[in-house]
Amino acid sequence: MDQYFKSYEELDVHRLMLNDTSRTLAYKNAILNDADKFKDKIVIDVGAGTGAGAKTVYAVEASELAKMCEEVIIENNLGNVIKVIHSKIEDLDPNVIPKADIIVSEWMGFYLVHEGMLESLLFARDNFLCEGGILFPSVAKLYASPCQLSSMFQFWDSICGISMKCIGKHYRETKSMKPEIASINEDNILADSKLIAWLDLQSISLSEINTLGNEEYVSICNKEGILQGICIWFSVEFPDGSELSTGPLDKSTHWKQTIIVLPVDVKVEKDEPVAFNLELKKDNSKERKYNIKLILLDAAEVEHEIPCYCYMTKCIVTRKYLEEQSNNTIED
Amino acid sequence: MDQYFKSYEELDVHRLMLNDTSRTLAYKNAILNDADKFKDKIVIDVGAGTGAGAKTVYAVEASELAKMCEEVIIENNLGNVIKVIHSKIEDLDPNVIPKADIIVSEWMGFYLVHEGMLESLLFARDNFLCEGGILFPSVAKLYASPCQLSSMFQFWDSICGISMKCIGKHYRETKSMKPEIASINEDNILADSKLIAWLDLQSISLSEINTLGNEEYVSICNKEGILQGICIWFSVEFPDGSELSTGPLDKSTHWKQTIIVLPVDVKVEKDEPVAFNLELKKDNSKERKYNIKLILLDAAEVEHEIPCYCYMTKCIVTRKYLEEQSNNTIED
Repeated sequence: MDQYFKSYEELDVHRLMLNDTSRTLAYKNAILNDADKFKDKIVIDVGAGTGAGAKTVYAVEASELAKMCEEVIIENNLGNVIKVIHSKIEDLDPNVIPKADIIVSEWMGFYLVHEGMLESLLFARDNFLCEGGILFPSVAKLYASPCQLSSMFQFWDSICGISMKCIGKHYRETKSMKPEIASINEDNILADSKLIAWLDLQSISLSEINTLGNEEYVSICNKEGILQGICIWFSVEFPDGSELSTGPLDKSTHWKQTIIVLPVDVKVEKDEPVAFNLELKKDNSKERKYNIKLILLDAAEVEHEIPCYCYMTKCIVTRKYLEEQSNNTIED
Repeated sequence: MDQYFKSYEELDVHRLMLNDTSRTLAYKNAILNDADKFKDKIVIDVGAGTGAGAKTVYAVEASELAKMCEEVIIENNLGNVIKVIHSKIEDLDPNVIPKADIIVSEWMGFYLVHEGMLESLLFARDNFLCEGGILFPSVAKLYASPCQLSSMFQFWDSICGISMKCIGKHYRETKSMKPEIASINEDNILADSKLIAWLDLQSISLSEINTLGNEEYVSICNKEGILQGICIWFSVEFPDGSELSTGPLDKSTHWKQTIIVLPVDVKVEKDEPVAFNLELKKDNSKERKYNIKLILLDAAEVEHEIPCYCYMTKCIVTRKYLEEQSNNTIED
C-alpha cells in the first residue's frame, strides 16, 4: 500500500506542475521560438519534456516517473525522437550517449535552489554538453523584497469575536523558524526588490553556487506598513530572451514565493530604507540543502546606492548634488 | 526541531479550522440562540470553544493545544468560567467534575467519521452528561450523491498539446484506492442525494456506529454526464434547529467533500437510475478507522422508491398508476 501512496502523491505533485501553465508554456514557447537551434540536434532533457524538430532527445529521469514518461512518448508517437533514460544524470556513463548540443531542464525549486537540482544541471553541463552547447534556460536570477503578511498574523486578533493573540505569537515564532512558501500579493510588497544572485548557467562553477547573496542590501519602502518578512523569488531566462518569472507581480506559479518571516513586527514609513543581509548557503553536512540566513541591519550603518532615493539626509544631499551637477552639465 | 515542526503543522491546521467561519459561526450562533439553555449550567466542551452565560465550562483537550487554550481563556478574561482539562475524555475520572447539563463538541471529521472522534463524544455523553442533558450538535446526517470529476481526469487529455492519457489512467487507479478529499461544485453533481445515515446523537449507541449505510440506494440523474464517483458529505443540527451543512451546494468548509472514485467512467443519461451500496464500517483491527465500500448495482435488480422518477418502464407505470389513483381520489 505504501507504494501506491507514494505514486499517488508523486502524481499529484506532477499534476500540480503540469497545471502550472506559466511554467510549461514558458519552456514550450522558448523552445519553439528557437526551433532552428533544435533542428537536427542532440538534446538532453534533465527531467522530462517535449522536442521541437530535434534529431534525438534523451530524457533523463531518475524517479519512477521514467516509466510514465516512456508511456507518454509512445502515446504521442515520439518514440523515434525521444529516448528515455531511467537514471540519475550523475550515474550515467558519458560514453553511452553522444555529447548534446542543447540541455533543457526544469530544475528550479522553491527559492530557486531548494532540493539542489541546480547541482545536477551543472553536472550535466560539464559532462554531457558539447563545446559551445546551449542551456535552456541559460540565466537564473534571485530577488528579495521586504514585505508584510497581514492575513497571516492579523488573523489571530479576533476570530469570531475571540482574541487569540497569544496563539498568534506562537504561530509567528514557528513561522520564523523555516522558510514559508506562500503567495504574496502586490499590496503586501513594501519596498523595491533587490537582485540577490545572477547566475549565468553557461559558465557558473559548482563552487560559485555554494553561497548566494551574503551582501548588504538597501531597499526603499514605497509606502508605510509593517515589515514582517523578506519575500524571495526567482526568474529564469531562455536564449530567445523570454523569461519565466515567479514574483509577486507575476502570474502565480506552483513555486509561489518564499518568505523569511521576522520574529517581530517592524513599523516602516514611506521612503524609509530597509537594510538587510540575506545569505543562502549550502549545508555541507546535508547534501542539496541550503540554509537561509537573514539579518536586519541598521540602515544608517551600511552603504546606500548612489543615488539613493531614501529619506536619509546623506542620501537627499547626495541626490541634490548629483541633480545640480547633471543640470550644470546640461547647461554647459 | 521535530517538536517545532509538529506544533507548526498543528497550528496551521488549527488556523484552517478557525478560518472556516461556516463552522465557527454555526456553533457560536446555535449556542447564542439557545443562551437560556446555557444560563448557569455546567458545560463540557470536548475539544475547545466559547461559553454563553454558562456557570462553568470544562474544556477537555487531549493534545498539546490545551496549553494554548488556557492562554486564550486568560487573554479573553474567561478564567472564572472556563476550566481547561488537559486529558483525553476517556482518561478523565467522572468524579472529578460535576455532571454536565450540556456537552458541546466539534467532533466531525472528513466524511463525518474520519478519525472516529464520534466515539469520544458518545463516551462523554454516557459518562459525563446528566439525565436529560443536551448535546450541541444533537443530530448528524451523512449524504451521498453520484458525481463526475471533470477537471481531475480530463486534465490529462491534453497538457499544452501533449496527450498524457496513459498517466491519467495511473492517476485514476491510485485515486480510486482511497477516499479523495476535494471540493465538488454543483455542476459536477449528477443526481439527487441519498441519506446514508441519520444519527440521533442523544440516543445512538456505540454499536450502532460500527456500520453506517450498507443499504441499496437508487439516485436519479438530473442530467447526462460521466459518472466517476460517489460524493459524500455530512450535516449536523443544533437544538435550535440550525444546521451546519458541508455539501457541494453549501458554502465551502475545511471538510470539503469526500469522493469515492470509480476506477472507470460510466456514461449516464438524464433520468437514469444509479444504484449503489455504500457502507462505512469500523475497522476493528485499527481503532478509529473506517473502511468505505462502494458497490455499483444493476438498477434493474434493486428496489426503487415508490414513486420513482427514473426512466425505467416499471417506475413510469407505477407513477402513472399512482397519479391516476390520486386524480380519482380527488374527483371522488
